Amino acid sequence: MFPKKLTKQVICDYDNPIVETKAGKLRGVIVDGTYIFRGIKYADAERFQMPKPVASWDGIKDAIMFGPVCMEIQTDIAHDAYNVPHFYFPQDENCQYLNVWTQSINDTNRKKPVMVWIHGGGFATGSSVELYAYDGEELSVFGDVVVVSLNHRLNVLGFLDVSGYGDEYKYSGNVGMADIVEALKWIKENISKFGGDPDNVTIMGQSGGGGKVAALLQIPAADGLFHKAVIQSGVTAGGRLVKQEDAKEYADLVVEALGLTKETFKDNIASIPYFKLARATQEASAKLAEKGKSVGWAPVYDDDYYKGTATITGFREETKKIPMMVGSLLGEFSNNFIFEPAPGSKNSWSEELKQKLFKEKFGDKADEIVAAFKKAYPDKNTADVLFVDQTFRKGVLEYVAKRVEAGCADIYEWMFNLECPLNDGTLAWHNAEEAYMFHNAEYLEASYIPGVSEWLQDVMTGAWVSFARYGDPNKARNLPLWTPAKPGRHDVMIFDRKVGMVTDHDKELMEALPTVNGFGFKLGNRGGDGKPRLGGGPRQST
Amino acid sequence: MFPKKLTKQVICDYDNPIVETKAGKLRGVIVDGTYIFRGIKYADAERFQMPKPVASWDGIKDAIMFGPVCMEIQTDIAHDAYNVPHFYFPQDENCQYLNVWTQSINDTNRKKPVMVWIHGGGFATGSSVELYAYDGEELSVFGDVVVVSLNHRLNVLGFLDVSGYGDEYKYSGNVGMADIVEALKWIKENISKFGGDPDNVTIMGQSGGGGKVAALLQIPAADGLFHKAVIQSGVTAGGRLVKQEDAKEYADLVVEALGLTKETFKDNIASIPYFKLARATQEASAKLAEKGKSVGWAPVYDDDYYKGTATITGFREETKKIPMMVGSLLGEFSNNFIFEPAPGSKNSWSEELKQKLFKEKFGDKADEIVAAFKKAYPDKNTADVLFVDQTFRKGVLEYVAKRVEAGCADIYEWMFNLECPLNDGTLAWHNAEEAYMFHNAEYLEASYIPGVSEWLQDVMTGAWVSFARYGDPNKARNLPLWTPAKPGRHDVMIFDRKVGMVTDHDKELMEALPTVNGFGFKLGNRGGDGKPRLGGGPRQST
Repeated sequence: MFPKKLTKQVICDYDNPIVETKAGKLRGVIVDGTYIFRGIKYADAERFQMPKPVASWDGIKDAIMFGPVCMEIQTDIAHDAYNVPHFYFPQDENCQYLNVWTQSINDTNRKKPVMVWIHGGGFATGSSVELYAYDGEELSVFGDVVVVSLNHRLNVLGFLDVSGYGDEYKYSGNVGMADIVEALKWIKENISKFGGDPDNVTIMGQSGGGGKVAALLQIPAADGLFHKAVIQSGVTAGGRLVKQEDAKEYADLVVEALGLTKETFKDNIASIPYFKLARATQEASAKLAEKGKSVGWAPVYDDDYYKGTATITGFREETKKIPMMVGSLLGEFSNNFIFEPAPGSKNSWSEELKQKLFKEKFGDKADEIVAAFKKAYPDKNTADVLFVDQTFRKGVLEYVAKRVEAGCADIYEWMFNLECPLNDGTLAWHNAEEAYMFHNAEYLEASYIPGVSEWLQDVMTGAWVSFARYGDPNKARNLPLWTPAKPGRHDVMIFDRKVGMVTDHDKELMEALPTVNGFGFKLGNRGGDGKPRLGGGPRQST
Repeated sequence: MFPKKLTKQVICDYDNPIVETKAGKLRGVIVDGTYIFRGIKYADAERFQMPKPVASWDGIKDAIMFGPVCMEIQTDIAHDAYNVPHFYFPQDENCQYLNVWTQSINDTNRKKPVMVWIHGGGFATGSSVELYAYDGEELSVFGDVVVVSLNHRLNVLGFLDVSGYGDEYKYSGNVGMADIVEALKWIKENISKFGGDPDNVTIMGQSGGGGKVAALLQIPAADGLFHKAVIQSGVTAGGRLVKQEDAKEYADLVVEALGLTKETFKDNIASIPYFKLARATQEASAKLAEKGKSVGWAPVYDDDYYKGTATITGFREETKKIPMMVGSLLGEFSNNFIFEPAPGSKNSWSEELKQKLFKEKFGDKADEIVAAFKKAYPDKNTADVLFVDQTFRKGVLEYVAKRVEAGCADIYEWMFNLECPLNDGTLAWHNAEEAYMFHNAEYLEASYIPGVSEWLQDVMTGAWVSFARYGDPNKARNLPLWTPAKPGRHDVMIFDRKVGMVTDHDKELMEALPTVNGFGFKLGNRGGDGKPRLGGGPRQST
C-alpha cells in the first residue's frame, strides 16, 4: 500500500473490478483509473520442492492487499532506510504472490507491453513491495504498460541444494528461481486478461534482481517466457558462480546442524520452524568458514536447471536475440553517505583537504586517478572520486563487452549519476535510479530535486518504456540518440542533470582505480553497514 | 516514512536542521516547511526494569528515520490491512523512540500545543508508525501544533509482573506504561526547543492507545506531564482490570516455562531470546486456560504505580481537572467488511432479505431493535443495524457517565459514523476516524470520499486542535456548538456527512441490543479474524 493523495473515488465495489484468471476470479481496486491487483497467488510449493500452479477456486478472491513476503533470516532497519524508503511487510514461507498495475482489463485486443519487476536484496532478502520506488501505478499510467512485481522464495528456502536427499529436492538449489519462472508462466497464461501482451514481456531487476534477470537468461525453463531484459546494478566484475558440489557440501552442514540424516530428512524437513532453519544455516556457514570456504545464496550451477553465470560459462544460444539494457550508478555502495572520511559536506571541503584525502586513499596513484576522474566527469566535484563505485561499473563493462563479443542482440549501456541533495550533496546511491524508471522520483524525500526530478523521470521512464515496447529506447521523448554497444568500445548513456552519450569516458579511471573486491563495507543482512548511522551512535560533526 | 508527492526541496543538510536536546544534538529533516525528527531515543531500559533517560552524547545524532518498534509475539498481515493501511517496521526490544513534527524550532517564545499520539494494538502490538493515518505532518501544518508519537514496550516486555523475582522488577507489570511516562518527561524537558509548550500537552490514543490514555490518568507518576486527554474507541463496557495476584500467577507460569526459578531468574532473564519468551507466554496461557483463567496484556493493578481502571476503582482526584474528549465509531469491529451474513452489498439487499437477517440475528427482538435503530439513525440503511458496534459505544456511555458523576472537568462525547465506500458501502470501522483527526483522509484508498473527506477532516482536525489548544473544541471552524457532558444525559457530536449534536439518540438501541462480550470474532494476534479475507480463501459471491 503506497498511499498517495487522492482526488477521485477509489473503486473497490462488491463485484468490481473483477478479472477471471485461469484459476478463478479476482477482485482488485481502481485507483484514479489504474486497475491494481495486489497479492495474487501464482504458485504453491512444498519446502525445497518445485512450485506448482495454484489450484482453481470458485467465487471471487480478493486481490486488494499485497501478499506476505518471503521469510528473511534477520530483518533490521536497512542501512539505506532513509535514502531509499522501505516498506517492510509480514513474512511467510508461502510467499509466491505477484501484483499487477494496468490501465484496462478484460479487453484482450489491447495488447500492452508487460514490464516485470524482480526485486533486489541479493538472493537473500527483499520483496516486491520492499521499496516505495517499486510502486507500479505511475509507470503503468506514464507508459500505458502492464506492470507486474513478484515475491519468490529467498535464502535457505530458495537456494539450499538438498538434491542429495531425494528426487523431489532435485532442483532445491534453484527453487527460488523456479518460483520466478512459474510467475512468468502465470503471466504468459493470464496477462492478456489484464490488457498485457504475453508475447512482449520485459524482465527488469536491480541489484539481486538484476542478478536474477541475468540468471533467467541462463535457465532453459524460462525460454520464451520473456523477450527483453534490463539489468540495473546487477552484475559485478568477475561474476560469481556457486558450484553444485560446494552448494551440496554447505547443505550437508545445514542438515547436520538440524540434527537430521539422509534417512530422517524427508519425514522431518517440512515441519521444522523457519527460525531453526535460519540458525542452522548460520552454524553451517561458521563450519564452512573454518575450512576457509563460503557459499552465498545464489542459483546453483547444476548445468541442468541453471546453466551458470554467462560471463563465465557463456551466453546461451537461445537467449542471444534478447535485447538488453544494462547499467549502474556513480556512487552505489561507495557513496559519501556511507563513507565519511572527513567532517562536513564533501562539497564544502577545501582543495587542501581534498588533496590530503586523495593521498590517503590512493597514495602514489592519487594524481593519475584524479586526472582520470576529471576527464571522465569534468562537471563533478573532484571529491567525488573518493566515492566512485567500481564493483558494479566494472561488472557492466565486462558483461556488455562479453555479450557484444558473443554476437548477441542490441545491448544498451547506461549510468545514473545524478547527485542527490542529502547532506548537501551525495553521490547516486545503490537503488537511486529506480524511482526514475518507475516515475516515482517526486515521492522520495532524500533524492527529490524540484525541477530536475520531474523531467529526468520523464526521460528515463520514457526510455525504459520505449525499450519494453520496441526493444529500443530511442522512441522516448527528449532522449538523445542512444546507440547500442559495439565491439571494443563503450558507448554509455549518462542520466544526470544533463542526459547524453559518451564513449569510453571512464576507461582510464576504471583501469587506474585499485580493485576493490565486493562493496568495501560489511553489508550484513539488510542493515548494518559497518558504520551504522540510522538509530546508531552519534556522528561527530567536529 | 510516508512518501508524499513533493514539490519543494527537502532539507537534510549536513548541519541543518539541528535541535539541541538535553542529552545532545539531533539532526532532522525539513519537508515542505515541516520540521520532522524521527526515531529520537527517549529512554533506555533493562528487560523488565524501569526506563531511564538516555545518556548524553557529543556530536550530532541523526533523527531522520524512525526507530525500531517493539517486538511482537507474531506479526501477520493485519485483518484490516487494506481498510487501514499499515506500515510494518523492524522490531527490537530496545524500542523507546519518539517522533516529532513541528512548524518551528529553536524559538522558545513560540509555545504551541503539543499533541501526543499513543498508538493502539491493545497493550500487545502496534507502533507509532503502524498506520499511515498516524503521520503527523498534515496535523502539524493544519493546526500549527507540535505532534509527537512514540513507541514503547508491549506484551511480555511491557506487562509481565515478575515483581516477585527481585526489587529491580518491582514495576515490571507496568514498565510498558512507564516508558510512556518517560516519553512524557522527555517532552516536558525538551519540547520547547521544538516550539512546543510543555505546559499544554494533550495525550490522545485510539483502541489500546485510548486504553493507555485512560491508564495514564490513573498513574501518579504521570501527574503534571499532560493537561488534556482524548480517548478514541479505547474504553469498553464494564472495563477490565488485571489484578496483581493474577498477573503474578501468570508470570510464575511463564518463568516456569522458561525453566527458571527464583534463584536463577536474575542471572539469566536478560539474555533469553525474545522468541523463547514469547513461546513461554503461550505455554503459560495454555496452562492458565486449563484452570479456566486468562490474563491479557494490560497495566497491572498494584494500587501503587497504577491505580486501576477508573470506572472500577474510581477517578483520581489529581486528574479530575483534565478536560477530555471520548468517542467511538458506528461499526468498529462489527462492520460489514468483517461480517457478511448474505452475498452482495448490504446497500443492495432487498427489504425481504433484510427482514430475514434481522430475524436471524435478533429473533423476537428484531422489530424493537430495528425501530430503535431507525430512531437513532434515520438517514442510515436499516441493514446497518446488523453491524452496529456496542462494545466501544457502551464503554463510552459508561466512562462519560461515571466521569460526569465524579464531578470532573468538561468531557466531550462523540461518534464517527461516516460510511466508507469500500464494498459499495461499509460502516465506519475501528480506526477509520484517525485519518480525519490527523488530516490524512485524502491518503486512504478504502475510505476516501471526494468532496466529503476534505471538509470533514477540516472540521474534525479543527475540533481536535481546538481542544488541544484551549481544552474546548468549539473554536474550530464550521463546527456546530458542542456542549460538554451533563449528568443523566448523553449529548453526542456526530461526525458523518452531516456534523451535529444529538441527545440520547441511541439510548433505546443500546438497551435493546443483546449484549456481546468482546468483539464478536476472534481478533487473534494482529490478523486472523475468524473469517480471513486478505490473502485467504475465496469469497463466495453467489
